[in-house]
Amino acid sequence: MREDVKNLKSVFEPSSIAVIGASPTTGKLGNVVLKNILDSNFEGKVYPVNPKYQNVLGLKCAPDVHSIDGKPDLAIFAIPAELIPDVMEQCGKKGVKGAIVLSAGFGEIGRKDLDQKLAAIVRKYKIALIGPNCLGALNPANRVDTLFFPFYKLGRPRIGDISFVTQSGAVGSCIVDMAAYFGIGFAKFVSYGNGLTLDESDIIEYFGADEHTKQILLYLEGTKDGRKLLEVMKKVNKRKPIIALKAGKGAGASKAAMSHTGNLAGNYTAYQAAFRQAKAIEVNSLAELFHAVNAFSQPFPKGNRVAVLTDGGGLGVLTADALEAESMRLAELSPATVKVIKSILPPYGNVGNPIDIIADSGPDQYRKALDALLADDGVDTIIVIVLFQAPALDSSILDIIVTASDQRKKPIFTVAVGGEYTNESRKVLDRYGVPSYDSPDFAVKALKRFTDYGSFLSKKKK
Amino acid sequence: MREDVKNLKSVFEPSSIAVIGASPTTGKLGNVVLKNILDSNFEGKVYPVNPKYQNVLGLKCAPDVHSIDGKPDLAIFAIPAELIPDVMEQCGKKGVKGAIVLSAGFGEIGRKDLDQKLAAIVRKYKIALIGPNCLGALNPANRVDTLFFPFYKLGRPRIGDISFVTQSGAVGSCIVDMAAYFGIGFAKFVSYGNGLTLDESDIIEYFGADEHTKQILLYLEGTKDGRKLLEVMKKVNKRKPIIALKAGKGAGASKAAMSHTGNLAGNYTAYQAAFRQAKAIEVNSLAELFHAVNAFSQPFPKGNRVAVLTDGGGLGVLTADALEAESMRLAELSPATVKVIKSILPPYGNVGNPIDIIADSGPDQYRKALDALLADDGVDTIIVIVLFQAPALDSSILDIIVTASDQRKKPIFTVAVGGEYTNESRKVLDRYGVPSYDSPDFAVKALKRFTDYGSFLSKKKK
Repeated sequence: MREDVKNLKSVFEPSSIAVIGASPTTGKLGNVVLKNILDSNFEGKVYPVNPKYQNVLGLKCAPDVHSIDGKPDLAIFAIPAELIPDVMEQCGKKGVKGAIVLSAGFGEIGRKDLDQKLAAIVRKYKIALIGPNCLGALNPANRVDTLFFPFYKLGRPRIGDISFVTQSGAVGSCIVDMAAYFGIGFAKFVSYGNGLTLDESDIIEYFGADEHTKQILLYLEGTKDGRKLLEVMKKVNKRKPIIALKAGKGAGASKAAMSHTGNLAGNYTAYQAAFRQAKAIEVNSLAELFHAVNAFSQPFPKGNRVAVLTDGGGLGVLTADALEAESMRLAELSPATVKVIKSILPPYGNVGNPIDIIADSGPDQYRKALDALLADDGVDTIIVIVLFQAPALDSSILDIIVTASDQRKKPIFTVAVGGEYTNESRKVLDRYGVPSYDSPDFAVKALKRFTDYGSFLSKKKK
Repeated sequence: MREDVKNLKSVFEPSSIAVIGASPTTGKLGNVVLKNILDSNFEGKVYPVNPKYQNVLGLKCAPDVHSIDGKPDLAIFAIPAELIPDVMEQCGKKGVKGAIVLSAGFGEIGRKDLDQKLAAIVRKYKIALIGPNCLGALNPANRVDTLFFPFYKLGRPRIGDISFVTQSGAVGSCIVDMAAYFGIGFAKFVSYGNGLTLDESDIIEYFGADEHTKQILLYLEGTKDGRKLLEVMKKVNKRKPIIALKAGKGAGASKAAMSHTGNLAGNYTAYQAAFRQAKAIEVNSLAELFHAVNAFSQPFPKGNRVAVLTDGGGLGVLTADALEAESMRLAELSPATVKVIKSILPPYGNVGNPIDIIADSGPDQYRKALDALLADDGVDTIIVIVLFQAPALDSSILDIIVTASDQRKKPIFTVAVGGEYTNESRKVLDRYGVPSYDSPDFAVKALKRFTDYGSFLSKKKK
């Protein structure tokens, strides 16, 4: 691993942080960033730097990096692009190992001169540089948070094992915000923008070696080095799933990507081939990227035989359609399972798969059916559809599903579609590691990708 | 129109309602239904019927239909299937014109004998029968609500112009609940279950003639009469868009559909051909059905040239990808528009389409850009992407978008992805008739269907 890649430790787990351009003025970037770091209860030293002020937000403010009374590990830049190379040089001399440049105004607007100047300094000192033109980093475990969006507008995820590397700050913040909403945890997040010296491949390599990261999300518009990306994906994806969304596929989108981060979006089919070769999991939309997030928290299924348990007949039919469209199989239930299902249905009830336990069913029927399905060797995965709106259900259904999932015998995916009450129930499921979806096809697509990756891993082992 | 179809007026706009099987016991179907009707402030007379009680929920309870002191217009059945034919006969004699049979236990479990008996009576008296085995009807304008799900679990939509005919109560309630959550209004809703004497075609015909209905949603598993469905769709879809979701496409799903409402799901390609021939709008998932709901509230675009306005670069790139995938065009901006965009961007900003006004942009930049795009003859539709999380935005952006949409010059679709704060903002947009989506491809797919239908309509006129 290159020295500057190793130094990403100073970005994600800094012992101390300098905020270059710290400001007492509400709304200014250097104010929001410093405030968020303090509000996140970052445990190390924090050094505001700005020649204009002696104190910022109650902290002593240094006029320049050289004058900082201590040794900052990470420097966050919230100053105009033109000024950054000189200050970076000072940072290098001071022993700074990680840098995040939030500011725009580099290669993406044609300033290749600034790019070159900055890159040379960063390389000389082996600084791990995130950016420029980015949203920076988030590490809930170490309370590092450079996302300059207010907490009340953008939720922050809890500590978890998903790491996300994204070229686009906007796309990144959307996923982070949704994850926070549904209680899904993150290990690390980084929006790398132009990726001047450290690109997606470097960060994926770092996450590949990071013990807290169990799966990697990737949002990518273009790369400067496709071969390097393929190689690192091949290496890492064998141990940790890489779920990738490539944007800038068509001509118009590709042009937009170029002016966004100054990276060529390139030929999409080449990317697609690389994902396939590395067996990385390619998704096709922002929604699908989010849908995959929690799916990969489940234990891998042994095969593609799925049991669908539902209290709403139509939702079962739609799920069966989605399974058939994705070449998944409806499991054949064992005689023991059929017996249990018969015992919980009214005398006239039909036992099939989807198992329609009808809307009169309460939590007890769900519990019995789930126990039977967990014990049934012909069932690899269970999709549980819950019409939380049904009068017969109360919140104990949440315990029952979470308890079944906690046995970690088989993956359990849930589908629940509705408004306020249903969304609050879905949040509980996701918070406890049971993925929930608001359309049957979303659950099935995520399950298909998860099943395929599981089968790739088990073939590797053989 | 057949007499019993005309009598659907008694289902949706009854002057009075009898609840057969009304009960004082909390949780019983006959209790929930009566309670919901009273809680909805239904303005006509309500007659509980049950030989076991003299009073239910403060109302005088009749022992049988014959003894009701008045003439009920609509009868709602919450009693066992076996008892229903005899009571229906009484209803016929009493002059009841509409009936909703919520109870299951008919053809879907093989009781063809009960089906025949009930159908004969209903036909004799020309009663408009909804069901059996259904969730019944909802008409917010007339405060008719037979959905037996508690209000706190299932939101009820406000008064609007969308009518929904669904075979599945579960699928119906999911859409109703989501619509309520996002503040989207409904004209009428009906879950018709087994569709014994009135089927989807009859109800579509009725909605086609209903002055309050501007668009029709259809969820269908199987029909008994495909030719009739095609004919009614061809007739109605010329004036009001029919947005259809067909479930039970594959073999396994088709079997599940059969045991659900006793209807053969049939050959999917035949349905698909019928939708195409009628130019009805076919969607492929529950999510897509909901995504179409608000799209069709917009004024029709003149063509397929789309401008994308965004404060998040990556979201713009993803939207451009989705547009290209759906064969929509990125509009070429007029010199006047380019001038306006240049004036609101920093000096180094790139003017393209997607128009990336970057995350520093506030409401004023959005307003100026929107005004320019509304005036630009080269732009047919505007997709506005809002990163509500961005520090520079406040809630006035909502006014700006709603005001632009209210001019009804061009369709405006919005994309906003995130958690709590973003969802609350999306609700405001949808509530005011601006469709919002939480993935760029969702917006584009809905727009594509809407644009195609608009072009079909304008060709019809020529």
